[in-house]
Amino acid sequence: MDKINLRQYLATNLHVVENDVLEIVEHCTVQQIKKDSFLVRQGEYCRHGFFVEQGLLRQYSIDEKGKEHIISFAPEGWFITDRESVYFNEPARYFIQAYENSQIVLLDEDFNQLISKKISNYNTFNTKLLHNHIRHLLKRIDLLLSASAEERYLQFVTMYPDILLRVPQTMVASYLGIAPESLSRVRKDLARKNFKK
Amino acid sequence: MDKINLRQYLATNLHVVENDVLEIVEHCTVQQIKKDSFLVRQGEYCRHGFFVEQGLLRQYSIDEKGKEHIISFAPEGWFITDRESVYFNEPARYFIQAYENSQIVLLDEDFNQLISKKISNYNTFNTKLLHNHIRHLLKRIDLLLSASAEERYLQFVTMYPDILLRVPQTMVASYLGIAPESLSRVRKDLARKNFKK
Repeated sequence: MDKINLRQYLATNLHVVENDVLEIVEHCTVQQIKKDSFLVRQGEYCRHGFFVEQGLLRQYSIDEKGKEHIISFAPEGWFITDRESVYFNEPARYFIQAYENSQIVLLDEDFNQLISKKISNYNTFNTKLLHNHIRHLLKRIDLLLSASAEERYLQFVTMYPDILLRVPQTMVASYLGIAPESLSRVRKDLARKNFKK
Repeated sequence: MDKINLRQYLATNLHVVENDVLEIVEHCTVQQIKKDSFLVRQGEYCRHGFFVEQGLLRQYSIDEKGKEHIISFAPEGWFITDRESVYFNEPARYFIQAYENSQIVLLDEDFNQLISKKISNYNTFNTKLLHNHIRHLLKRIDLLLSASAEERYLQFVTMYPDILLRVPQTMVASYLGIAPESLSRVRKDLARKNFKK
């Protein structure tokens, strides 16, 4: 059924009744995105939030040497957007690209207005969501500053067991801020430790 | 005058009229914090947000080897808190400690309720503030993943010229995720380049 993940998200997290859910999602556009297509390119203006119904997106920057640095992954059930342009009217700082063929629900200002009107606790929920996002980003910064390659990898495995199986190791290494060779070494060491157990 | 920086913040950013400002800040407690005192220790529960009227706080973790990793600095006019405990009722993940003798305004749920009631656009403002915080954290993650020690240092100098003069180089290095020796080298290289200009 159409937009089933978004509807389930709203029903579960915001306790929205079925009729209201249908009304809220009715006007949202669904886009089929081919693997490797861009939703936003660095320097462009992005006007939507994206909810991932199916598939997998990634958000990344490219440095002066042409190397990609992964800021975030967004699999099914995740929201992603470019904050620079949506909230601050500045050109996008990052690329958002489909890593798999994906189905995306576009969320715009009308969606925000409607959901705020329909759901009395939406603002409270949204604020909590933003605080949760902030604490996860702070934790990631802390891990980048303080944790070994092995600790970062184990944290990733716990948080994103699914993504680990869907993307190449080079992308995991990019997200973790370690060299691909270090990631191979960490994986070998862990395999050896588990074998010995 | 009492809480002058908080009052100025509210008047400037939220366009609150003087009488409302006075009413909002009236019930907030001010604390004098001695250099090196803790506002929150890792593992404790924090119940307040903190607005820095005067002085300088830092938020940091300590790794297994006892090394400190600076998550954020908060000088005059900044808000800081422990999100884990205030919003998610979990023990604090980081220490918040005064680096200078500081004057702190404690903000609690009553403050939030009053400010939401008094200021019609407070929720919108707060949401924008959270999005702004998120984009700065994402940028920091991007710099940690992709930028050289020199780029990170130059970014820090631009964003926090004042803090640079108030804390030792080891703390700047800790915030930037680089070794103190690398920071010394970067500073020497930059000094040489400027001298040649």
